[in-house]
Amino acid sequence: MTISGSRCSDAIRGALAGAVLTVAAGTTPALAGSPAQADIRPLTIQAQGSFFVGGRDVHSDTLSTAPGRGADGTITVDQMYVSYQIPLHARRYPITLIHGCCLTGKSWETTPDGRMGWQEYFVRKGYATYTIDQVARGRSAFDPSTINSVKMGKTAPDTLPALFAAGHEEAWSVFRFGPEYPKPYPNLQFPLQAQAELWKQLVPDLYAALPSPNPTVPNLSALAQRLRGTVLMSHSQGGVYPFQAAALSTSGIAGIVALEPTVCPAPTGDLGPYTKIPILVVYGDNVEIAPRWAPRLQKCREFIDAVAKAGGKARLVELPQVGFHGNSHMLMQDRNSLQVADWLLDWIDRNIEKKS
Amino acid sequence: MTISGSRCSDAIRGALAGAVLTVAAGTTPALAGSPAQADIRPLTIQAQGSFFVGGRDVHSDTLSTAPGRGADGTITVDQMYVSYQIPLHARRYPITLIHGCCLTGKSWETTPDGRMGWQEYFVRKGYATYTIDQVARGRSAFDPSTINSVKMGKTAPDTLPALFAAGHEEAWSVFRFGPEYPKPYPNLQFPLQAQAELWKQLVPDLYAALPSPNPTVPNLSALAQRLRGTVLMSHSQGGVYPFQAAALSTSGIAGIVALEPTVCPAPTGDLGPYTKIPILVVYGDNVEIAPRWAPRLQKCREFIDAVAKAGGKARLVELPQVGFHGNSHMLMQDRNSLQVADWLLDWIDRNIEKKS
Repeated sequence: MTISGSRCSDAIRGALAGAVLTVAAGTTPALAGSPAQADIRPLTIQAQGSFFVGGRDVHSDTLSTAPGRGADGTITVDQMYVSYQIPLHARRYPITLIHGCCLTGKSWETTPDGRMGWQEYFVRKGYATYTIDQVARGRSAFDPSTINSVKMGKTAPDTLPALFAAGHEEAWSVFRFGPEYPKPYPNLQFPLQAQAELWKQLVPDLYAALPSPNPTVPNLSALAQRLRGTVLMSHSQGGVYPFQAAALSTSGIAGIVALEPTVCPAPTGDLGPYTKIPILVVYGDNVEIAPRWAPRLQKCREFIDAVAKAGGKARLVELPQVGFHGNSHMLMQDRNSLQVADWLLDWIDRNIEKKS
Repeated sequence: MTISGSRCSDAIRGALAGAVLTVAAGTTPALAGSPAQADIRPLTIQAQGSFFVGGRDVHSDTLSTAPGRGADGTITVDQMYVSYQIPLHARRYPITLIHGCCLTGKSWETTPDGRMGWQEYFVRKGYATYTIDQVARGRSAFDPSTINSVKMGKTAPDTLPALFAAGHEEAWSVFRFGPEYPKPYPNLQFPLQAQAELWKQLVPDLYAALPSPNPTVPNLSALAQRLRGTVLMSHSQGGVYPFQAAALSTSGIAGIVALEPTVCPAPTGDLGPYTKIPILVVYGDNVEIAPRWAPRLQKCREFIDAVAKAGGKARLVELPQVGFHGNSHMLMQDRNSLQVADWLLDWIDRNIEKKS
């Protein structure tokens, strides 16, 4: 019996579209795909694993609306999943990878078109990596009790949490693939032929239903302190979290690399914490012509200028200024992602690693 | 400024309770914890990464109830996240790890008390591993549109999906830590001192709101075919999925190891597919005295007996029969987890690897 029907066909197409292919029947699965992957050497790691940071217990009588399951009890929420890999002879500072809106730690793994992601690339370059799933997303649990409460008739529908799934069409302009779906920018570096694989990375996002600061922020602070020094590398909606963590405590934060943050701290606020940490804010290309992004870039520039003026070591870079053109919002997945990574690692090496 | 308040204290406690500790300020983070971990040698892998299997596009006008986000568009659902590691000189058949209810692929990683999980252990023993997050859980997106539709007043509260979060108290007996919370079985192997870390692994589960068979099943079938041979190792609520995948197609399924399945196929159904694949069903200890589990064991025994009678190579093992005592439902996290793993790998070696 073979599987059939549109769902199964989709499943098989999806399987075939991914990054791993078997070379032939009877052989061990091997990487295939882009020519670069044929050159990948074995990777030796000192240690790997996963754990959680944070979390608090809450009691609820609306834990379940599934048949045969008890609704009353205690669950743990607000914890943050962290997976790590430590290479042999690791450099001084691990890099903590903080994904953006509607995404998970998967952002930093194999790219949609099957190339090596930054998580592995950084390990191969000698950096331990700690990859998180933001609180209430991915492998970090969300609290379902408010949803069940409405289904059970205990509370009104308007108490349901604000939930957001990014549609492909809106994500197109948010991710700056082009001015509007499905029109791309002429110089776009994102591998659009593999866009379906990116859409599969998107998960529903409860950020609007979480307290401020997001519980991810104190968790990042705790992680940084536990690691006794880490570079917080953040993206998009997660972009501001390292700054918010630094406002809690600069302890353990060796540096901040914020990629395409949607928001930066106010230039008029307390800039003290930010003057103590090397800071790099990075945007890709086509920012000034993107109505959603141009004001964000401007606001972050004002923040960086204010920090520099206050004596901090802060820099904002648009990638075209340093020779990279066509980068989208998903620059860790763009075709030139490893070249951009090399530039970032060089900045980290010169400004953080060598200064410690 | 230091972080304070109960949430932050919880976060720090959580951080300190995990598996990775820094040895001293100024050093690279290193594994610490149980004595066994001091002996861990570096691990060389041929390749690693992640991808998705399956997925289908759906259009909705209730994608978002978050401020400033469009509600209309296309999202992709039913895809299954898969992460993989392939050791040097991998054995013939990868092991695909399929977690159970209310959990994610994290189940197979570092144990709650900080020991090596089966995913890494299997890789160190020469097996490529493919670890999934079931559809609509973890890094595999769920569809939020039915929830948003109710919040927007378009549909009634009783159309909300059935959602289930396992409370610690109920999970206690489900995971067979003891007869009732918080009383343990006298011989329990689960590291109860680290139970808080297990509770953090639990995520809300939408299984009751998904079609039957769960979309994870055709995705597993597609993955198995793509790998051209894999051992499907499943747990608990995921326990029956390999059997359901085999009913779709036996292609690519080199063997099935079902750990503590909540249900097995009916012994009176079409047993043809199951006679073609080596099958091992495993339960831990204290099953006969657990009202929830004794009938499940009995039903699975009837299935295995029927498959064997029909000419299949099927075996059901209660771990005490082969010398392991006190194992809980979470046997991959029990204190003797690596000894149980050795027994399983020996069975796989003799019944699948050497027979191919």
